[in-house]
Amino acid sequence: MTKLTINSVKNSKIDHVNFNELPFGKVFTDHMFSCDYVNGEWVNPTISEYGPISLDPSARVFHYGQAVFEGMKAYKDENDDIFLFRPEDNFDRINKSAHRLAIPEFPKEFFFEGLEQLLLLEKEWIKTGKGNSLYIRPFVIATQPAISASPAEEYKFMIICSPAKSYYAGEVRVIFAEEYSRSANGGVGYAKAAGNYGAQFYPTSLAHKEGYQQIIWTDANTHEYLEEAGTMNIFFRVNDTLITAPTSDRILDGITRKSVLQLAKDNNIATEVRPVSVAEIKEAANNGSLKEIFGSGTAAVINPILGFKHGDFKFELPALTDNNYSSFFKKALNDIQYNLAEDKHQWRHKVTK
Amino acid sequence: MTKLTINSVKNSKIDHVNFNELPFGKVFTDHMFSCDYVNGEWVNPTISEYGPISLDPSARVFHYGQAVFEGMKAYKDENDDIFLFRPEDNFDRINKSAHRLAIPEFPKEFFFEGLEQLLLLEKEWIKTGKGNSLYIRPFVIATQPAISASPAEEYKFMIICSPAKSYYAGEVRVIFAEEYSRSANGGVGYAKAAGNYGAQFYPTSLAHKEGYQQIIWTDANTHEYLEEAGTMNIFFRVNDTLITAPTSDRILDGITRKSVLQLAKDNNIATEVRPVSVAEIKEAANNGSLKEIFGSGTAAVINPILGFKHGDFKFELPALTDNNYSSFFKKALNDIQYNLAEDKHQWRHKVTK
Ligand SMILES: Cc1ncc(COP(=O)(O)O)c(C=O)c1O
Ligand SMILES: Cc1ncc(COP(=O)(O)O)c(C=O)c1O
Repeated sequence: MTKLTINSVKNSKIDHVNFNELPFGKVFTDHMFSCDYVNGEWVNPTISEYGPISLDPSARVFHYGQAVFEGMKAYKDENDDIFLFRPEDNFDRINKSAHRLAIPEFPKEFFFEGLEQLLLLEKEWIKTGKGNSLYIRPFVIATQPAISASPAEEYKFMIICSPAKSYYAGEVRVIFAEEYSRSANGGVGYAKAAGNYGAQFYPTSLAHKEGYQQIIWTDANTHEYLEEAGTMNIFFRVNDTLITAPTSDRILDGITRKSVLQLAKDNNIATEVRPVSVAEIKEAANNGSLKEIFGSGTAAVINPILGFKHGDFKFELPALTDNNYSSFFKKALNDIQYNLAEDKHQWRHKVTK
Repeated sequence: MTKLTINSVKNSKIDHVNFNELPFGKVFTDHMFSCDYVNGEWVNPTISEYGPISLDPSARVFHYGQAVFEGMKAYKDENDDIFLFRPEDNFDRINKSAHRLAIPEFPKEFFFEGLEQLLLLEKEWIKTGKGNSLYIRPFVIATQPAISASPAEEYKFMIICSPAKSYYAGEVRVIFAEEYSRSANGGVGYAKAAGNYGAQFYPTSLAHKEGYQQIIWTDANTHEYLEEAGTMNIFFRVNDTLITAPTSDRILDGITRKSVLQLAKDNNIATEVRPVSVAEIKEAANNGSLKEIFGSGTAAVINPILGFKHGDFKFELPALTDNNYSSFFKKALNDIQYNLAEDKHQWRHKVTK
């Protein structure tokens, strides 16, 4: 394994950043990690100043979307210790995504060495206080200059970081998809493949025009089963039971999702992981048993959904009660992430020199 | 409309290119066309020396696959006149693709002005003689530096060109897909969206391992209907009838495909445009009525398929007879493309100063 090269910047740009007003994903830290795949191996792991990269216009990523990514966060506790949340799962998932996109897998040592050294260099960018975090974006792109429609032989793996405030997506109401779809059986929906995201922008813009912020995707075959949102898995609370769709080759295996399911178990909250039909959710809405809908994902942690629409059917969720699940899970997850609660399942990963 | 800026190179690199050995899509001409979308409009249409472009690592194309492309060819006749084949259809299609990916449409004048000026500059790269052509790749990528999962506000439109020899894909045998799929109902399969292509690389690599070069994709719901190949539409000749699947939101509306259908009509060849089931093609194979399978697309024009596999069922197509359709359509199309035959439908577009 080649040694990590670190070229740190002389002057940080951190003083020019207003940490009270941070739009999501627009401000980046001083450094980035990169590593190249050439001649069958990953070489040149390097941390250097954040800045533009130069690619041939024929690079495969531009033409064939051979690209995958991850989304994770670093948190700081009151002692200025830095923590990641289940980072091994992100590592495993980026390689699962890479495999499906015919991208060579990335070595574990490089990933963690690059990631942790980068975080230590950027430690001033991670602010203490619940809600503050550093959003971390590992990604891999096919860089080889050739437009033949076949897997590239050259890639670039990078990690860039963006400081984030507590993510408030605003009031979120959703449309249950009836016409457009996100993924096919036997497709790449379970991978964090770049192309899955751009494909959602247009249908989502149509939802915006109707006053809805997001879409809950349904199965492409029948549009009868609720699957997931654009960047969140989805939970339904019917009476006191928490219901969510099983993962499949169409649905991303969300790390927040599986953490919620585990915390539910730990707290004796009944869960059902099974196909969730649009019909049953509409019926539960009508008969008053539908108490909550929320999304789960790294960016927002837990995002309560205020209402939904399906065809002519429109529904506003009831106001959240004191013992609502979304606040409970958000607090439980945040407490573990910020080192404020016991970490029964070893989800916290402390970043050390 | 901003005026096109042309910065032509002093010294062409053409003398270093071996035109007898041209791998597909690896050698590019001296110039490229580019144009930027900023502040709500397309600006700076420029032809300049072919070379790397510089992008922020957070550019949306790397993360969310917001990118579309086209594939077209320029041909030269014996008088050194340059022709395009139905270029308006490529223009319309890139904008149809762009629309689905929430990318702003590109103005027609810019497209044709940029394309034709580029071709005139590169005219030495287009060699006379049937089979020789210049492959043209227009594409649009989201360049805005921000990783929020929403449509970018900045884009780059480019055209790059690669000289091509007569495309011989080698012997092509295909697998009819049973597990993996290319696109979903309500998805982006009909668009030339970058993500559609990278998603096929892995299943195709599995086919390679079994000795098959390509996959014919089937509908994702049932895998019972044959749709298209990775970069070609597919035709079946059963007795003397030519059958192909209708276009849909899952299938690319190929320009070669619709030209074949028109030429069939002009030549009194019976055609059926309707769902084509795997079962009927296997039955036709068994009873001897399946005479030919071929793919149609800009790169190969017409590509005969020699055999197929579906589960345990393997079939070798019969040897092509003198009056085979694939040679007939290939010649008919090439004759129009190279200005060797009457152009009844005004498909040829002469490139003039
Ligand atoms: C499509 C999709 N679903 C769900 C999620 C939530 O996954 P996680 O909880 O691992 O962030 C994400 C975001 O990562 C996503 O992109
Ligand atoms: C998916 C797909 N199908 C079919 C085709 C053939 O289309 P055309 O004949 O316009 O080149 C292409 C290539 O452009 C393609 O990418």
